[in-house]
Amino acid sequence: MPNTTRHMTSTLDADGRLTLALEEVELPAPTASQVVVQVEAAPINPSDLGLLFGPADVTGAEYSKGKIVAQMPAAAMRAFQGRLGLTLPAGNEGAGLVIDAGSDPAAQVLLGRRVTAFVGGMYARHRVIEARDCMVLPENVTAREGAAAFVNPLTALGFVECLHAEGHRAMVHTAAASNLGQMLHRICAADGIPLVNVVRKPEQAALLRSIGARYVVDSSADSFRQDLQAAISETGATMAFDAIGGGPLLGQIMGAMEVAANSGSQYSRYGSTSPKRGYIYGMLDPSPTILNRNFGFVWDVSGWLLAPVMERLGQAARERMYARVAAELTTTFASHYKAEVTLEAALSREAVLDYNARATGAKYLILPNG
Amino acid sequence: MPNTTRHMTSTLDADGRLTLALEEVELPAPTASQVVVQVEAAPINPSDLGLLFGPADVTGAEYSKGKIVAQMPAAAMRAFQGRLGLTLPAGNEGAGLVIDAGSDPAAQVLLGRRVTAFVGGMYARHRVIEARDCMVLPENVTAREGAAAFVNPLTALGFVECLHAEGHRAMVHTAAASNLGQMLHRICAADGIPLVNVVRKPEQAALLRSIGARYVVDSSADSFRQDLQAAISETGATMAFDAIGGGPLLGQIMGAMEVAANSGSQYSRYGSTSPKRGYIYGMLDPSPTILNRNFGFVWDVSGWLLAPVMERLGQAARERMYARVAAELTTTFASHYKAEVTLEAALSREAVLDYNARATGAKYLILPNG
Repeated sequence: MPNTTRHMTSTLDADGRLTLALEEVELPAPTASQVVVQVEAAPINPSDLGLLFGPADVTGAEYSKGKIVAQMPAAAMRAFQGRLGLTLPAGNEGAGLVIDAGSDPAAQVLLGRRVTAFVGGMYARHRVIEARDCMVLPENVTAREGAAAFVNPLTALGFVECLHAEGHRAMVHTAAASNLGQMLHRICAADGIPLVNVVRKPEQAALLRSIGARYVVDSSADSFRQDLQAAISETGATMAFDAIGGGPLLGQIMGAMEVAANSGSQYSRYGSTSPKRGYIYGMLDPSPTILNRNFGFVWDVSGWLLAPVMERLGQAARERMYARVAAELTTTFASHYKAEVTLEAALSREAVLDYNARATGAKYLILPNG
Repeated sequence: MPNTTRHMTSTLDADGRLTLALEEVELPAPTASQVVVQVEAAPINPSDLGLLFGPADVTGAEYSKGKIVAQMPAAAMRAFQGRLGLTLPAGNEGAGLVIDAGSDPAAQVLLGRRVTAFVGGMYARHRVIEARDCMVLPENVTAREGAAAFVNPLTALGFVECLHAEGHRAMVHTAAASNLGQMLHRICAADGIPLVNVVRKPEQAALLRSIGARYVVDSSADSFRQDLQAAISETGATMAFDAIGGGPLLGQIMGAMEVAANSGSQYSRYGSTSPKRGYIYGMLDPSPTILNRNFGFVWDVSGWLLAPVMERLGQAARERMYARVAAELTTTFASHYKAEVTLEAALSREAVLDYNARATGAKYLILPNG
């Protein structure tokens, strides 16, 4: 067993200096209930980028071997008061091989197995974690295939669980050509849930159509508003999950829901009483959300965050979700990556400028030992 | 009994022509379960103005005796497709004397009594309504005092019921110097609920302080952001009711809640897990709602509409609310009016330009028979 390992951290100082670095740290022996995972693959999700870089200036940053120093904009500092001076390990999720285990039977049984986990700090050569936090990968599933078993799959399944729990029958999804969007399409197709896929480019629309998506609306098209209205009216979607956050898009979607709800019904000065439900789960666009409120007074817009939502959905739903992810990891929940990089290469200027643009289809996978 | 009566209606044509008129219509005999109310007083609430005028151009309108013809902006017409050609009676609530009644005992018992009702069409000399929709006013309460017994009192009480039902302990209210805002202050003072009153002018702040409000924040002050933060941090308010709707105010309030929630707690990249709850119940500013989303991912912003909220609160809460309104009509729920007008005068240019400005302290009361 190695005595030390290497992991990636992000540290913000009070003067706005953001330092990303690979640090050599002690690798403690596992306690009775823990295992040591040799991390083989960990994806860079948008939620990781928030911790790693946030709104820092990566273009003007200083890059050296295994280290980046960037400046955080002054206006953003208020939101980060809580993390000043803290050295935060990065990497929400990842998969690897269990190379050591504590004495508990639950830990011992994992020795030599390939597992995946969602515990943070996975941009590391090794990670000591609780045995109960490991999901064992089937024999035929590689670490690459199992590395992203939590954030995107549980988010996509969480949308569907919320749809049912809140009594909706069809949904709208934005930034819909993403890995997550493709998973959501496959889930909804299998479950018979009408899904309106909103994308921002013609090639993204083509991609979704090529995998069988029926309702695809391109916000860059001149006919966007009419296309959106037609898709929402036809599906009866009353719920939207928005990865973008900024700008008028979510409000436009809810306005289209209102038009659909009012079609053929009696006039009410307060708008329709049909629910119109928008969730913002990402912030691909960090600019303000603009709501025109042309959708009456019966509507809700909320933030959507995986952990508290899963808590709210309850034990039965959580078990259902985990079982489905395990069973469909290489089909429904397959991810695609633009590039695979080492820990060192993940901190290179070329890689950062590419994956931190948060463009659909530009997801990276880190191979900490490869 | 008269065979006809006079009421105020609003009609929108497909070409955007909005006509407000006093119409002479048949006064039907009451059915067994109905009564005939000679309406003595009916308030002009913001919710009435939405039906009467909406965003129509009242400055450039044609005014004649008992009639106004105004133009609706083309951009607003989409929201009004459902009301084209419909002649809609106006006046959500009002009080008056029961001058005729059907044969049912529940109707007969109201004969000669002064009642108040929230059934629409109250800008009328007479209104035929179901006996069960009448709230009998105590002997010593005038129609003027009892005319606004529903919309504002139930809205203010509804805020407090929602606060308790959703587990919050303190709240923020905007446009807080309004009749409704003063009622809410009196309720919260009596019930020991910390209330942050946000107003838009120094004289409104002075008014609220003069009736004993402890937390008053003036958005026109240079120190607004700091004052708001201090009041929210001190009260621990996590819920806001916003009458304004447009602009950044509600987002600023929720940002201040986030700062208060993060104070002294561990840093989380996803923001605090403390709930931040905004309700938009009015639209004094019809421009878009601007949410900066500097408050993490655990937040909700919703429309708030009295009728569905009361349905959701349940029977016990509704009975509690009605009983309190009846008991405190001339104290907690007292309203103040800038002017009293006849039906005819309510359609004069001078009156319309004044009350349709929706300024705090400029509420009118219509006396249809006075």
